[in-house]
Amino acid sequence: MSNNILKGKKGIIFGALDENSIAWKTAVKAHEEGAEFVLTNAPVALRMGAINKLAEQCNAEVIPADATSIEDLTNLFEKSMEILGGKLDFVLHSIGMSPNVRKGKEYGDLNYDWFLKTLDISGISFHKVLQTAEKTDAMNEWGSILALSYIAAQRTFPDYSDMAQAKAVLESIARSYGYRFAKLKNVRVNTISQSPTMTTAGSGVSGFDVFFDYAHKMSPLGNASSEDCANYILMMFSDYTRMVTMQNLMHDGGFSNSGITEDMVAELSK
Amino acid sequence: MSNNILKGKKGIIFGALDENSIAWKTAVKAHEEGAEFVLTNAPVALRMGAINKLAEQCNAEVIPADATSIEDLTNLFEKSMEILGGKLDFVLHSIGMSPNVRKGKEYGDLNYDWFLKTLDISGISFHKVLQTAEKTDAMNEWGSILALSYIAAQRTFPDYSDMAQAKAVLESIARSYGYRFAKLKNVRVNTISQSPTMTTAGSGVSGFDVFFDYAHKMSPLGNASSEDCANYILMMFSDYTRMVTMQNLMHDGGFSNSGITEDMVAELSK
Amino acid sequence: MSNNILKGKKGIIFGALDENSIAWKTAVKAHEEGAEFVLTNAPVALRMGAINKLAEQCNAEVIPADATSIEDLTNLFEKSMEILGGKLDFVLHSIGMSPNVRKGKEYGDLNYDWFLKTLDISGISFHKVLQTAEKTDAMNEWGSILALSYIAAQRTFPDYSDMAQAKAVLESIARSYGYRFAKLKNVRVNTISQSPTMTTAGSGVSGFDVFFDYAHKMSPLGNASSEDCANYILMMFSDYTRMVTMQNLMHDGGFSNSGITEDMVAELSK
Amino acid sequence: MSNNILKGKKGIIFGALDENSIAWKTAVKAHEEGAEFVLTNAPVALRMGAINKLAEQCNAEVIPADATSIEDLTNLFEKSMEILGGKLDFVLHSIGMSPNVRKGKEYGDLNYDWFLKTLDISGISFHKVLQTAEKTDAMNEWGSILALSYIAAQRTFPDYSDMAQAKAVLESIARSYGYRFAKLKNVRVNTISQSPTMTTAGSGVSGFDVFFDYAHKMSPLGNASSEDCANYILMMFSDYTRMVTMQNLMHDGGFSNSGITEDMVAELSK
Repeated sequence: MSNNILKGKKGIIFGALDENSIAWKTAVKAHEEGAEFVLTNAPVALRMGAINKLAEQCNAEVIPADATSIEDLTNLFEKSMEILGGKLDFVLHSIGMSPNVRKGKEYGDLNYDWFLKTLDISGISFHKVLQTAEKTDAMNEWGSILALSYIAAQRTFPDYSDMAQAKAVLESIARSYGYRFAKLKNVRVNTISQSPTMTTAGSGVSGFDVFFDYAHKMSPLGNASSEDCANYILMMFSDYTRMVTMQNLMHDGGFSNSGITEDMVAELSK
Repeated sequence: MSNNILKGKKGIIFGALDENSIAWKTAVKAHEEGAEFVLTNAPVALRMGAINKLAEQCNAEVIPADATSIEDLTNLFEKSMEILGGKLDFVLHSIGMSPNVRKGKEYGDLNYDWFLKTLDISGISFHKVLQTAEKTDAMNEWGSILALSYIAAQRTFPDYSDMAQAKAVLESIARSYGYRFAKLKNVRVNTISQSPTMTTAGSGVSGFDVFFDYAHKMSPLGNASSEDCANYILMMFSDYTRMVTMQNLMHDGGFSNSGITEDMVAELSK
Repeated sequence: MSNNILKGKKGIIFGALDENSIAWKTAVKAHEEGAEFVLTNAPVALRMGAINKLAEQCNAEVIPADATSIEDLTNLFEKSMEILGGKLDFVLHSIGMSPNVRKGKEYGDLNYDWFLKTLDISGISFHKVLQTAEKTDAMNEWGSILALSYIAAQRTFPDYSDMAQAKAVLESIARSYGYRFAKLKNVRVNTISQSPTMTTAGSGVSGFDVFFDYAHKMSPLGNASSEDCANYILMMFSDYTRMVTMQNLMHDGGFSNSGITEDMVAELSK
Repeated sequence: MSNNILKGKKGIIFGALDENSIAWKTAVKAHEEGAEFVLTNAPVALRMGAINKLAEQCNAEVIPADATSIEDLTNLFEKSMEILGGKLDFVLHSIGMSPNVRKGKEYGDLNYDWFLKTLDISGISFHKVLQTAEKTDAMNEWGSILALSYIAAQRTFPDYSDMAQAKAVLESIARSYGYRFAKLKNVRVNTISQSPTMTTAGSGVSGFDVFFDYAHKMSPLGNASSEDCANYILMMFSDYTRMVTMQNLMHDGGFSNSGITEDMVAELSK
């Protein structure tokens, strides 16, 4: 599928780690749809090197940036405009990490320095991206800025731990800064709440397989894949969706509004 | 804007009354994007005649159908498949009418026969469309069915009266039948909750101007126009959004998540 | 537990069918808390006779009323004020029935006359109660009116069928009439969204046991019992909750905000 | 109003600053309802001294605690159990402060150290309270823990700035820890989303008067007062509400579900 729906559009894509990641698939498809963009990731993630293959495929440059560093972000936005020869139409924020989850801390025994780190990396970084975009005057009128979220912002998934709070912050920032950027530049800001995905990040969480299967059975269309998500992201970057802002958009095969499904009843009746 | 995103897709569009209506703009744009479709409306609305102009412009046929009549709907789906030479990929339901509102009944003095009529015409008709589509086996795999709703389903707008309940029914049907059609055919079913629009229908409600202006000031991007809505509908019919189902999608310039705006504060500080 | 929190309050309780019903337990407890009230139910339900035992226990009179009949409701409100010697402080609406569910019609094969009946009996009857209460000027200032709902108004439970739409109507009426009654009389109107309950009504739904167990495992505190619900209703009738209105209140042991639970993971890992 | 609904219950109340604060009114009324409790606040707030008057009136002791300090909180819970002679049945968290708001930083020019401070003081402190309560094994079975929130967690109020994110964190913690505490001890955890209140904290926000009046006109019952809120808190601490958990409870006179009101239309039609 390619219809040039992003023809002439310029942007920045955060978080393309490897071929499984949503940001990676978004980059490939955005390129096919006519977009030009800069790829970025944390220096530590870039060191793994895979991104260069993607950059080549998409004819894109890579600029390292720690999304918690205003200095890095300022450099990223300024360089991106130079490279792309103008202001930006879209930004994808796909960043999340919790030291408490990584190190297996229980939710009743959180390390609070790490909790703040979770919020900073996975939530506040989105505000930093937005504030830097504003301060560098990097966005074109009617641009579109997206971050990837998860329904743990609304409901409790015990293993998700303090990432639930990070996603709540992320979605709240989309509403708050979405208001601001609408008034400033008619730029829209939204989050996409995506099905659990078999990405490198997702599959690291404990008990992920059972959970993935549960979500699949509870989603009438099944779990949305990272490729599906990339398609949806393109649409939200295109001019077809200019008046959607400050929303958290469920992209989940119907999971969020399914109380129970016949597949689940069958499973539980075994 | 035209990118052939609906190339080869077939469908039915309900409710194109005149040039102001969302369904009308959707038809024009869907045609530009490569779709083929049948136009339909209630016989009484068709008698006003404007739709023939649209039909000509879109190279579409018109089939009259009262959306509360199973007989009419069965005929509509069967004829449409004949005319279009195959099954359908999309359906737009844009139908609403309340006798209680029309005749100025207060919400504390409703006529209950009319209340049932409001629910039948504006809500249950969507179920009839869906059930008939299923019974005539009219939908292709991965098709998309949409109905137009309004935020009165969630919050009280006193003049909206029993139409609030009709929209609640409409959105609920999207969730219930969305589950069913996902399992049957991977068809998605959603509602779009649109800004107040200066359509012939919308502008008939009392005090509409003050209200329209209020909604505009409370929407950071302003009220979404019927043209904006048509663009969004196209995207929801396209293959970019296959995994979104059972959702009520806010297309409102940010109204739904705005608690207050500086424009409103300025207005109230006068 | 009894603290006289309803001392001196008068009301009407709909829907006490037998000892398992929420309305029954509410009546017993409301009596203990000092309330005086009239019991009512449809003539056909009253014929089963159990309610007289309850009436005796609560020192209450029984007035038959078909909640879809304005005539019956008018008689009910007028007689109740006579019997109780004054206006009312609370009303409990606990009424629901779907011919389509009863007769096992699938959601893709609904009988539309029955669909309208479902909405009339289970949804619109609440508007009739409210409108009649207004027209007979039956409510005291700061009164409280409640109806019982279920989370099927928000999410799809396939077996719940068109009752999902009825509950959507019910909750929508609470918002619309809640606005009206607040302005008229400072009366609040809310719905309580209760766990699945082992009532005579609840347990009639197919596959109820598996579902009940699922809901229990997905509710961190377990399913709320009908007795728990009665306690919550008392509080919503009391003066402790005067400023809560137009809300749908989740009384469900946490079900609505649980994405998954360790109990469910354990079950699914078997 | 006093019905001994908290007879024999023990607890801790955070945040009673002066006679205007919700926590203050809660303390007075909880005392009247038969509860025993410890009062606490940050050392800097206690230095203002008013709390001693309250302590005397309620026959309560005061223990200073910085709610961001685990050491202080541990001391608080341990001492409270000593003083009260047993475990606790309720805790009220009423804490919020944003350095960015205080110092007038715009939302597009936030200081990020202060942003983290806002989240730590106003959001994470609730997790610290909960985690400390668990680690000191301070809660009785079926206890109730509440925090005070605001609808800025769901919708944008521009002047509320990063406090919106703090409230989003707060409500998310209630859902996450509510799950945990339910499984551990059948303890419920909720937030109350209260109308804007003329407290010392509330009235410090810029443009508060216009906003307060707006909220009042948009609330069919008017803004809920701090006294109303105290009543609602008591109810949520009582045994009448045992099965309500992981919820954000709107206590707002109907504001959250009002799309527009006739009062607002009248104001805007001037």
